Amino acid sequence: MEKENSFSTINQERIEQYLPHLSIDCCVFGFHENQLKILLIQWEGFELWSLPGGFILPDESADAAAQRILRERTSLQDIFLEQFKIFGEVNRTNNPESRKVIQQSGLDPTAQNWLLQRTISLGYYALVDFSKAIPTTAPLIQDCRWWDIQAVPPLMQDHAEILKHARKALQLHLLNKPIGYNLLPEKFTMTELRRLYETILGKSIDRRNFEKKMLKLGILDRLEEVKTNVTHKAPLLYRFNQAKYHELLNADFGFGF
Amino acid sequence: MEKENSFSTINQERIEQYLPHLSIDCCVFGFHENQLKILLIQWEGFELWSLPGGFILPDESADAAAQRILRERTSLQDIFLEQFKIFGEVNRTNNPESRKVIQQSGLDPTAQNWLLQRTISLGYYALVDFSKAIPTTAPLIQDCRWWDIQAVPPLMQDHAEILKHARKALQLHLLNKPIGYNLLPEKFTMTELRRLYETILGKSIDRRNFEKKMLKLGILDRLEEVKTNVTHKAPLLYRFNQAKYHELLNADFGFGF
Repeated sequence: MEKENSFSTINQERIEQYLPHLSIDCCVFGFHENQLKILLIQWEGFELWSLPGGFILPDESADAAAQRILRERTSLQDIFLEQFKIFGEVNRTNNPESRKVIQQSGLDPTAQNWLLQRTISLGYYALVDFSKAIPTTAPLIQDCRWWDIQAVPPLMQDHAEILKHARKALQLHLLNKPIGYNLLPEKFTMTELRRLYETILGKSIDRRNFEKKMLKLGILDRLEEVKTNVTHKAPLLYRFNQAKYHELLNADFGFGF
Repeated sequence: MEKENSFSTINQERIEQYLPHLSIDCCVFGFHENQLKILLIQWEGFELWSLPGGFILPDESADAAAQRILRERTSLQDIFLEQFKIFGEVNRTNNPESRKVIQQSGLDPTAQNWLLQRTISLGYYALVDFSKAIPTTAPLIQDCRWWDIQAVPPLMQDHAEILKHARKALQLHLLNKPIGYNLLPEKFTMTELRRLYETILGKSIDRRNFEKKMLKLGILDRLEEVKTNVTHKAPLLYRFNQAKYHELLNADFGFGF
């Protein structure tokens, strides 16, 4: 017996409560075992994976919609979100590939289908504490899980393009603002902080030079305790100094001049 | 006799050809006499000034819509545009202040008015050659002119907020990518380049340090000729090396590490 596709049960009236022609797609980044991770979902009946996304209610700001969408996928509140770019090409949701996917799912592949209407997507990226996020499915979402950024599966529509731009925005952010607070546990070693930078920038960074630059920023408090449960010399632990971290976060740019 | 307000002649059917709930607002920057300039318009019958803006046609990408809107205001083609942020608050176009402005213009200040509908704005900034842009009015636009960034007049709706974010995006861009090509004449002095950086960053920059950093980037060709028509020692002229400029523009970020 063929598996019934839940998408055919989408209530057109219910989906039309949202603002038309607009969607939100989120690149949710986490950091685990020295690797950058991305949260992806698989819609019921689809082979391709997707960025978690959704639509905007008429009485809801775009930022609030993104928070709601990600709360449903991670159980986290007040997620660190940045709207980094929009994706506004005319045929990004209605092209031969999309129609084929829609048809394979037993849905109407004509322009009347809400999923094929002209849709401008608002791209957000989110930084979350990997250890606290709980990847969560839903009736139409058969899977929701973390993927290593080096091994992302084939993605629907232009989601690979959206992810590419999110990574660039994240790199730019990292080089101009403090970033670790949302991705690291409360206490961390200098090596863990450097690995975070390396995995986001996709290149290795000189250890001493990094430590010197980080300490010079003045946003780290060195703790009295050291990391335990390690086999060799116990490394120093650090914590972000909240006041100085936020001061730098809100300061004008200008590391360079 | 009271002046007839052209807004009352807006053809509701014609305006409804555009994608609903979406607008584009553009911060157009130019550089003239060592100052950053911003292009602003004044809608017919309104005292407040606005960013040049408009709507998106169903068969037009968001970027193409922004190009069209700015071509109409400047006569320029292929403008350097960056979509930097969206403005998605629920009441950004329908609030007591907006309704008052609409009413003063003799228009219907109820939610049926297209101008008061929930509208998410896509913020773009543009960098143009001041000497080549021709500020151009239109039937509903009574004025269109450059303003010094230090002396911007009161703006409609949340346009001051949009401009504030555009300036931050421009600063971030300036500190991470080459930028002068779109704002400077073909040949320029090192002082003119530094003044451009100073007016965008809003602070003075050490002359020698700046020159050293700029030359190290390898994007400038020093010309054989010097600047003429100056009273004191003729300064050297530079031009951007197209190949190296675009190489750096497309490179990964990472001035810092």
